[in-house]
Amino acid sequence: MRIITISREFGSGGRELGKRLAELLQIAYYDKEIITAIAQKNQLSEAYVSDIIDKGLSRTYPITMQRSFSFPTYLQESTSKILVQQQRIIKELAAQGDCVIMGQSADVILRDRNPLNIFVYADMPSKIIRCRERETAEEHFTDTELQKKIRQVDTKRARGHELLGKHKWGEKEAYHLCVNTSGLVIKSLAPQIAEYAKYWFEREK
Amino acid sequence: MRIITISREFGSGGRELGKRLAELLQIAYYDKEIITAIAQKNQLSEAYVSDIIDKGLSRTYPITMQRSFSFPTYLQESTSKILVQQQRIIKELAAQGDCVIMGQSADVILRDRNPLNIFVYADMPSKIIRCRERETAEEHFTDTELQKKIRQVDTKRARGHELLGKHKWGEKEAYHLCVNTSGLVIKSLAPQIAEYAKYWFEREK
Repeated sequence: MRIITISREFGSGGRELGKRLAELLQIAYYDKEIITAIAQKNQLSEAYVSDIIDKGLSRTYPITMQRSFSFPTYLQESTSKILVQQQRIIKELAAQGDCVIMGQSADVILRDRNPLNIFVYADMPSKIIRCRERETAEEHFTDTELQKKIRQVDTKRARGHELLGKHKWGEKEAYHLCVNTSGLVIKSLAPQIAEYAKYWFEREK
Repeated sequence: MRIITISREFGSGGRELGKRLAELLQIAYYDKEIITAIAQKNQLSEAYVSDIIDKGLSRTYPITMQRSFSFPTYLQESTSKILVQQQRIIKELAAQGDCVIMGQSADVILRDRNPLNIFVYADMPSKIIRCRERETAEEHFTDTELQKKIRQVDTKRARGHELLGKHKWGEKEAYHLCVNTSGLVIKSLAPQIAEYAKYWFEREK
């Protein structure tokens, strides 16, 4: 089974790399599909589910365990229910066959399946350029605003990983390959990483 | 000009990877040659020169600047003389043509030449296995002793990098590619990294 998990900094081009990898290797690609499935099942908004998955339990549990008045019980329950569902769905998807899974701590959740865990990052100027390319006509962020947004998204991602993993999100020790995409064109980078993935899955053990 | 710098954790197989990369790409390989040149020029032992380069100025300077009684002046001078020579030799070697340079903060010293900076690391069990393979018949280290040795060497390497670099030694932000060699056979890994290097030097800008 070839499972590739991609964790990435916001603006690093990680999502494009993941999509292209799946295409090149002709395997399934899972990203927002997981959020959509959970949202539909629970009749919740995708934004709400996404937020809970990003934050993980780390933010609510330590508080609610100690001070029961600080957070309504039904919210605790719905949070952990969503996280349990997320883990189950990710495991089910992985069991179906080869795939690329974006984020969502899949590197930790699927540990037993020996996935190839890749981390994608870039320097701030490159991330700002990539975010600008994605801006719609109505959006006009200053560089400072963009930097703030990039840091916020990454902080949320790191938080969700905190509770599950032995290593912190983004710590190279948690990954098999860390790719700095500063100044690189993802379309040309993807075949290189696809080759690395092929080598990695066929390596002698 | 294609310059590859390799920084690596002790026992990660980084040196073998560097040698094989140089062979595959048919470019020069510099490692201890730099130490030897400085040692000969100054009639010093290679061990002494190597120790100074690893430690860098960070350990001696902050003390000697403030308390002139704590460190003999001639030692300060010889330390900085050696470090200046190291930088000059590394720059001269890089100017001669394509090469792989191992460690010695070459990633920072050669910044202006846009080298491909690779960091090689592995988990502790893999590093212990690699160190065992290198043990001579007379050496018999326990796992705990080996772990201690590995940590000591890495701490020294990190210290030498401290003064020069914006990023700490081993921080992924300082490198273009970080490769986890845990469980990998370097001989099979090397061609993959060589391909990545070719792509990187020929990339569109």
